[in-house]
Amino acid sequence: MENFIKDDFLLHSDLAKKLYDSVKNLPIVDYHCHLQPKEIAQDQKWQNITQIWLGGDHYKWRLMRQYGIDESLITGNAGDYEKFLAWAQTIESAVGNPLYHWSHLELKNYFGYDGFLNSKTAPKVWEICNKKIQSPDFSAKKLIEKSNVACIGTTDDPIDDLAFHKAIAADKNFSAKVIPTFRPDKLLLAQNAGFAEYVEKLAQITGKTCNTFEEFCAAIKVRVEYFAQNGCKSSDHSFDEVPFAEFTADEINSIYRKALKGEALSQSEIEKYQTALMVFLAGEYCAHGWVMQLHFGVVRNTNTVAKNTLGADTGFDRIKGTVDIENLSRFLDCLNSSDALPKTILYSLNPNDNAALDVLAGCFFQTGVKGKVQHGAAWWFNDHQKGMENHLEGLSYSGLLSVFVGMLTDSRSFLSYARHEYFRRILCNFIAEKCAKGEFCSDLDLLTGIAENICYLNAKNYFSL
Amino acid sequence: MENFIKDDFLLHSDLAKKLYDSVKNLPIVDYHCHLQPKEIAQDQKWQNITQIWLGGDHYKWRLMRQYGIDESLITGNAGDYEKFLAWAQTIESAVGNPLYHWSHLELKNYFGYDGFLNSKTAPKVWEICNKKIQSPDFSAKKLIEKSNVACIGTTDDPIDDLAFHKAIAADKNFSAKVIPTFRPDKLLLAQNAGFAEYVEKLAQITGKTCNTFEEFCAAIKVRVEYFAQNGCKSSDHSFDEVPFAEFTADEINSIYRKALKGEALSQSEIEKYQTALMVFLAGEYCAHGWVMQLHFGVVRNTNTVAKNTLGADTGFDRIKGTVDIENLSRFLDCLNSSDALPKTILYSLNPNDNAALDVLAGCFFQTGVKGKVQHGAAWWFNDHQKGMENHLEGLSYSGLLSVFVGMLTDSRSFLSYARHEYFRRILCNFIAEKCAKGEFCSDLDLLTGIAENICYLNAKNYFSL
Amino acid sequence: MENFIKDDFLLHSDLAKKLYDSVKNLPIVDYHCHLQPKEIAQDQKWQNITQIWLGGDHYKWRLMRQYGIDESLITGNAGDYEKFLAWAQTIESAVGNPLYHWSHLELKNYFGYDGFLNSKTAPKVWEICNKKIQSPDFSAKKLIEKSNVACIGTTDDPIDDLAFHKAIAADKNFSAKVIPTFRPDKLLLAQNAGFAEYVEKLAQITGKTCNTFEEFCAAIKVRVEYFAQNGCKSSDHSFDEVPFAEFTADEINSIYRKALKGEALSQSEIEKYQTALMVFLAGEYCAHGWVMQLHFGVVRNTNTVAKNTLGADTGFDRIKGTVDIENLSRFLDCLNSSDALPKTILYSLNPNDNAALDVLAGCFFQTGVKGKVQHGAAWWFNDHQKGMENHLEGLSYSGLLSVFVGMLTDSRSFLSYARHEYFRRILCNFIAEKCAKGEFCSDLDLLTGIAENICYLNAKNYFSL
Repeated sequence: MENFIKDDFLLHSDLAKKLYDSVKNLPIVDYHCHLQPKEIAQDQKWQNITQIWLGGDHYKWRLMRQYGIDESLITGNAGDYEKFLAWAQTIESAVGNPLYHWSHLELKNYFGYDGFLNSKTAPKVWEICNKKIQSPDFSAKKLIEKSNVACIGTTDDPIDDLAFHKAIAADKNFSAKVIPTFRPDKLLLAQNAGFAEYVEKLAQITGKTCNTFEEFCAAIKVRVEYFAQNGCKSSDHSFDEVPFAEFTADEINSIYRKALKGEALSQSEIEKYQTALMVFLAGEYCAHGWVMQLHFGVVRNTNTVAKNTLGADTGFDRIKGTVDIENLSRFLDCLNSSDALPKTILYSLNPNDNAALDVLAGCFFQTGVKGKVQHGAAWWFNDHQKGMENHLEGLSYSGLLSVFVGMLTDSRSFLSYARHEYFRRILCNFIAEKCAKGEFCSDLDLLTGIAENICYLNAKNYFSL
Repeated sequence: MENFIKDDFLLHSDLAKKLYDSVKNLPIVDYHCHLQPKEIAQDQKWQNITQIWLGGDHYKWRLMRQYGIDESLITGNAGDYEKFLAWAQTIESAVGNPLYHWSHLELKNYFGYDGFLNSKTAPKVWEICNKKIQSPDFSAKKLIEKSNVACIGTTDDPIDDLAFHKAIAADKNFSAKVIPTFRPDKLLLAQNAGFAEYVEKLAQITGKTCNTFEEFCAAIKVRVEYFAQNGCKSSDHSFDEVPFAEFTADEINSIYRKALKGEALSQSEIEKYQTALMVFLAGEYCAHGWVMQLHFGVVRNTNTVAKNTLGADTGFDRIKGTVDIENLSRFLDCLNSSDALPKTILYSLNPNDNAALDVLAGCFFQTGVKGKVQHGAAWWFNDHQKGMENHLEGLSYSGLLSVFVGMLTDSRSFLSYARHEYFRRILCNFIAEKCAKGEFCSDLDLLTGIAENICYLNAKNYFSL
Repeated sequence: MENFIKDDFLLHSDLAKKLYDSVKNLPIVDYHCHLQPKEIAQDQKWQNITQIWLGGDHYKWRLMRQYGIDESLITGNAGDYEKFLAWAQTIESAVGNPLYHWSHLELKNYFGYDGFLNSKTAPKVWEICNKKIQSPDFSAKKLIEKSNVACIGTTDDPIDDLAFHKAIAADKNFSAKVIPTFRPDKLLLAQNAGFAEYVEKLAQITGKTCNTFEEFCAAIKVRVEYFAQNGCKSSDHSFDEVPFAEFTADEINSIYRKALKGEALSQSEIEKYQTALMVFLAGEYCAHGWVMQLHFGVVRNTNTVAKNTLGADTGFDRIKGTVDIENLSRFLDCLNSSDALPKTILYSLNPNDNAALDVLAGCFFQTGVKGKVQHGAAWWFNDHQKGMENHLEGLSYSGLLSVFVGMLTDSRSFLSYARHEYFRRILCNFIAEKCAKGEFCSDLDLLTGIAENICYLNAKNYFSL
């Protein structure tokens, strides 16, 4: 049996190996993910590898569909073993795909299996994994601790009571910090059905009236404080495009009232409303020293049939063809002009935006803050070897790679900390290659310092942990 | 004399060589090209290398113009030998250009010359080539057979009688299948002069009236059937942008009648009409199990002076700066929602679209079909070493490279099968390099299977050959 | 002490070294830069390395701000030594950044220091540099001569009297040619405050009235002649987008009169006016055999606070997200159709435009002119190792790398000729690598010829020097 993931995986020089040795045991700050706090608090367990691998991973589902696998074997009623075999059959020829690497890293790190997964080995791998999974050691919290995770930033609704976060914090036997992230989608989507009901809940939970936009903001402020008290250090936003439109206070009040009445909003009204709210929110983030994370360039639910039959977030999202960098730039400048620009991380799903974002990020600064505005790690469809290398190259060519806050999983899976290992290996190899080619100083102390900063310390400082 | 094209050309490891050995003799399925069926049926011959190389190849013309060569030596009245010398002078310093590689591969494969072509060797090469060309063995059919071509998809007008295809099929001594491809430009360009006349011909040839859009569609259906009876497995379309606009049946009928009367159509009317017709056509393709090929992102005839003096398709086309991926996505979703999405291949001339197309393609699927929607091989100005590698990388990082239907020539030349060799070498080297770096399983059976699928079997299955 | 910049810096094969040896001593044609003619004429001197390195270099300022350095240590009142230390601290970890390479090349070439610059070595480097700077040999003219610069193209206002250029030309002891470049920003920005005053000055200096657009053009013509008499061979333009809009002569006259009266112009009026003026100017350039340089895709002064406190051109410009290639294409075609297309170099700040520009450039041609329209060297934020390699790849894959006019500094610094060395090394390595991989002829004469053309002769011919 040939071994796949060896110690020098992705490390193509001695220097790369040395560098990786110096960072591999650093704690992980996974500052943005989609783990369910409930699953951590209740210390979730699983019955088999299909549950943990295929239960919610739309990355894998996409690949299986592309291979022509029937939906019953993907999200449907087929048995877990049959689903696992279908996945093994799909992944065995997925040359170059990050899922090939992630899956094998996970097999090695969490199940002690370092061979290949394919149709032939699938029955054995099924057995090995399930045996581990059924051991008492295999639970959400144990996986987090085994992965040396210092801090997890979940993704939370502003009116969430954060009870699970409190429960996790109360567990003195659990070493990782699990902190909430303020994700106000429902505040921003004023055009959606249910907006008024949501505002009503906000009003109740805060004990405030929300009849005007001003009152609405005051209520939101209460929730920001609540999140801050519960350890929140960051917000997160997802847009197809970051909105920016000129507005007046009167316009916003009138749009807000229309939205509360459930009246339809025009595209222009939506943009004005969202701009106004984002400007308010950014000011709050800034005041609390939070990081504002902006995800954009994504179009969701491309396949209507699939949305109607399988639901949202089932693997049918795509890259927006063109992203409006001009509006994004105006938005940041507007905040900066009113002293309300928080530390900000920009993530576009379209890799064409890399160069423009690298440069845009370098246009805003603050004394004593390294990389005030950052171009965030290669996201989602770009979160692969070349995508990461391209992103690192962009950072280094257009600015200071050394201030980058590094990797996050953005994942729903407790096994995906393997992606931090993946990133660290690629980063160390990237830096070492520059040295090997005589393009950078090969002083080991200097290099180790850079690698440690990117893998751990920059994020720790940037998120005030 | 130094040799250029050696056995290991572009193959940088032993594994790459082994893989290439396993695919180099596989038949070629050239599923989309612009060869003239007439030239095949009549078994075209040539008098010299200039006729075959420079007679219609606007790729070469562009390069010569960039070198400052006078047009008389390109498409003008200069002698064939002088033209050949001008080409040799142009190509000798074309470091990195795919024409440099293609030309030398063709010299080796079809003329047995494996040295360099340059100003000094040109007289000798002229002699070698012309001697071969004048031998009885050197003809359209012989070149196709020598190239081990199993199947050729030509590009044909819907009212073409396909007489040449029938003649070719009737030649029992000729081994390659030459099948038509349905290319309905003239049906779609309702705004063009001559549309009414074209519809009149369609009516005559089908024996149908075409007074309404519905009747028009019924007549088209007859031609689709006729093409299917003659072996057609695919359609082809070329757009600057794939059209998509909401429409009603009434609107379309009214637009159709305006077009028949030769009245000017607004941009919006053109888009609605084209959308309606594409939706109808896609449904037909789907019903026949055809593949729908969509080429877009091209702007033709950029240089008006050249168009007026040299004509269309003479080397003045260019990449459209921005392509509307949103409309393309809506179009595919619309077809999918009415169960009328055929197998589809997407080709954009703008390489910036690669990532968005890779991901978009993965949003549509069908049980049992590998790669229902595909991002097609690097096209035209992207059809070079790096363009191919980037395309293969995109496929592998965002999905399953192994389901890719592989290479096509899109060419007007009987020598351009060398491009399949070029692709196969690049593909094998690409896969082998992943293995050499320890990033993929190096099991030779698995790898050979992947390479064979991409080089031959996937296309055979996808096009139902 | 480890040495950094060795003879083989960036040269990864023997062939690369040989090629570089053949071009390293060729004269430099720096056909576009922002050196001040006054500083050359007066043979500027400096007191310390901070003055020459940090006095006006917004590339370095950006990096320091990203590192969190206080503005007082960047453009503020801190002492020069403290500023130098802050820069050393910033650059020491700038892995991959071109400033790391440029700074070290400059240290070696102009100060004889070939070690690393970092916090530890900074005091020693400060001393070494300042000693050199204070020697009588260290002046603007001496630096230019030491750098083997044959020709410098400065950037000049149309009503500049070119007195400094005349003074430089009159210095028979100074070997380099310093020629003006016609940069008519103020003629084009009719919407700006001060336009009427500027036109008034133009009228005075030319002795012409400028009451109509026609008269205005006649006055400009006088200045074009004057520039031509003073050695000008080129114009330069910077746009966010190259303008193109249909216009009539009447419209232009009316817009021109509005502008003279200081009335506000609509966006459409600005575009028409600029198109009309560019068409006129291009005709003039064409008549004089000048090169037209078009820079676009840049958005300036992204950070309003910084603009208001630090001024323009202080490091807050960025890449425009999307560039309108369609208008650019129409503009070139319009000129070409009226026989008024000069030799033209296209530079976009957005690297996504590379492929479209490579192909667009190849759509225009002129017998006897190699590369009539060119895609210019990787500009500004793209002027780094990978940006250059990508640009060279684009040229070679889509056309003829061998006709490329090569490198320029676009710089304000007398030390930045090191960037020509940087380019030459990267170019030689790029070509040699193709040969090493068996992808191109390795005949040394041929290769040397190509390299010499790109490094020197093509620019000499193209700019008629």
